[in-house]
Amino acid sequence: MKKLINAPDEVLADSLAGVAAAHPSLVVNASERFITRAGGPRAGKVGLLSGGGSGHEPLHGGFVGYGMLDAACPGEVFTSPVPDQILAATKAVDAGAGVLHIVKNYTGDVLNFQMAAELAADDGVRVEAVVVNDDVAVENSTWTAGRRGTGATVFVEKIVGAAAERGADLATAVALGREVNERSRSFGVALSSCTVPAAGKPGFELAEDEIELGVGIHGEPGRARGQLVSAREIAGIALDAINDDMPLSGQVLVMVNGLGGTPLIELYVVYAAVAQWLSGHGVSIARSLVGNYITSLEMAGCSITVCQLTPQLTELWDAPVETPALRWGR
Amino acid sequence: MKKLINAPDEVLADSLAGVAAAHPSLVVNASERFITRAGGPRAGKVGLLSGGGSGHEPLHGGFVGYGMLDAACPGEVFTSPVPDQILAATKAVDAGAGVLHIVKNYTGDVLNFQMAAELAADDGVRVEAVVVNDDVAVENSTWTAGRRGTGATVFVEKIVGAAAERGADLATAVALGREVNERSRSFGVALSSCTVPAAGKPGFELAEDEIELGVGIHGEPGRARGQLVSAREIAGIALDAINDDMPLSGQVLVMVNGLGGTPLIELYVVYAAVAQWLSGHGVSIARSLVGNYITSLEMAGCSITVCQLTPQLTELWDAPVETPALRWGR
Repeated sequence: MKKLINAPDEVLADSLAGVAAAHPSLVVNASERFITRAGGPRAGKVGLLSGGGSGHEPLHGGFVGYGMLDAACPGEVFTSPVPDQILAATKAVDAGAGVLHIVKNYTGDVLNFQMAAELAADDGVRVEAVVVNDDVAVENSTWTAGRRGTGATVFVEKIVGAAAERGADLATAVALGREVNERSRSFGVALSSCTVPAAGKPGFELAEDEIELGVGIHGEPGRARGQLVSAREIAGIALDAINDDMPLSGQVLVMVNGLGGTPLIELYVVYAAVAQWLSGHGVSIARSLVGNYITSLEMAGCSITVCQLTPQLTELWDAPVETPALRWGR
Repeated sequence: MKKLINAPDEVLADSLAGVAAAHPSLVVNASERFITRAGGPRAGKVGLLSGGGSGHEPLHGGFVGYGMLDAACPGEVFTSPVPDQILAATKAVDAGAGVLHIVKNYTGDVLNFQMAAELAADDGVRVEAVVVNDDVAVENSTWTAGRRGTGATVFVEKIVGAAAERGADLATAVALGREVNERSRSFGVALSSCTVPAAGKPGFELAEDEIELGVGIHGEPGRARGQLVSAREIAGIALDAINDDMPLSGQVLVMVNGLGGTPLIELYVVYAAVAQWLSGHGVSIARSLVGNYITSLEMAGCSITVCQLTPQLTELWDAPVETPALRWGR
């Protein structure tokens, strides 16, 4: 295992120390392990909280800030955050209007967020949850009942974040988050495995000419192993799978996301193929992201996420955002 | 070779098509191979042009936009752009106030930019150059007479970009660019090699427990091969090398840059160590960047760049910037 770390069991604490040192706009609660905006919650604003295992950076800590999340709870690498941690973060961002949990659909995450929500309710905090389950590759995989939650999480966090910033109430935020999730689909492809520091060896193995089609963000198996093919073919496989599940039309928001070990130049090669496929199918790209937004440590590969836009979603996507990983327009 | 590409000889063209499709704020001249801002040059503004081999994305195309570059010329992967290409871009961004070439110190780049500058002068365009040579690891390496130009290029492009946006003339822009370069130092460490698509195999080999100390951005040898050590020790080696060359004090701008294959969580681990080292040496971090800004394809590793700030440099660093890879404050 070759990593820029001090010790496998110090990765999370050390990386949080780095986040705290690098971003004066954030506050890291090192003992309870959550990240909030400096300055704390704004009275009367719905608090937005997300979290999950570490190793997917910049998700979620990199999306804490104006116009997006109020807090993030990072678990150990590829491990759910614990209920007490989520509870502490929930209370920290409650400003009287309730707290929305944005949860990727993994069994551990869903259970722990649920337990934290119940504990928070006992303490008088209203909590609702949006469970993101956009990955079309497989139903019921390792660690998941139903579909996995992947790239659409970034869209939910950004769009609901904009609405919450403008004063949307908890019920509106929940409905909007579910709408974004329902209008979004993802598909990922791995060219290599990745190594959880505490495990010390790769989570799976791929042969020199092999790729995993429909891989999950922890390296969970997808639909099939296949031969390495061209970026154009990979884009086609991913978009066919998405289009089969949710026929695409009109205007879309597209993300070509790197899984951590793939260089940006390759993501642009994939993006060109995605743009060509969509244009050939009469679909218009209204907005896009190309880069590393929801990663799987150093895994090589990419995921493609498409959201069918509405004028309202486009407008909320364009709203100002100021976080370490997503920033525009303010 | 496992890459998300269509064919090794189509990588540059395909990635430029992706850049064009992804960024409405940019215009890609596909035949002459350069990227400019949409809307063209603003009359009377000094044009800022940089370029070099591809494979270092987001450098340089990702830094084209308001407050930073006017154009970028990407060569083939790890190959200098050619004089005609640089000449065409130079003319495209000349708005009557002359053009500044920001050139990383590699022999091919320096010669080709120089030749382009002479050709531009024949056509009546005033051109000056700032050659960036911030890498303290080695004097005279593969492809380089003198020191290599690496991370400080991002600082030069941002700070001179801000000054040019405000109307600095060519002589002022040149002097400022040289000042930033002189106040900046870098040191890189590789944990793995990388593969140029046209070569099809890694440029060098590292054993499972080996790292390259002082590696160049094309995998050029550094000072020594060493054993893999902790992030804290690696930060110490890099900062000692920088501090030996330019004793650090006062306020600095720091970049912990990923070489392409290293996950963000590890860069934050390194950043924490850098912050601790600097604080222990009485140096104060005034501004920072953590992420992939000048990469070496999928190489695992990082580089550390430090710039000794002045109040003027800090103020120009903070000025609004709106590019695909760096964006704030507008």
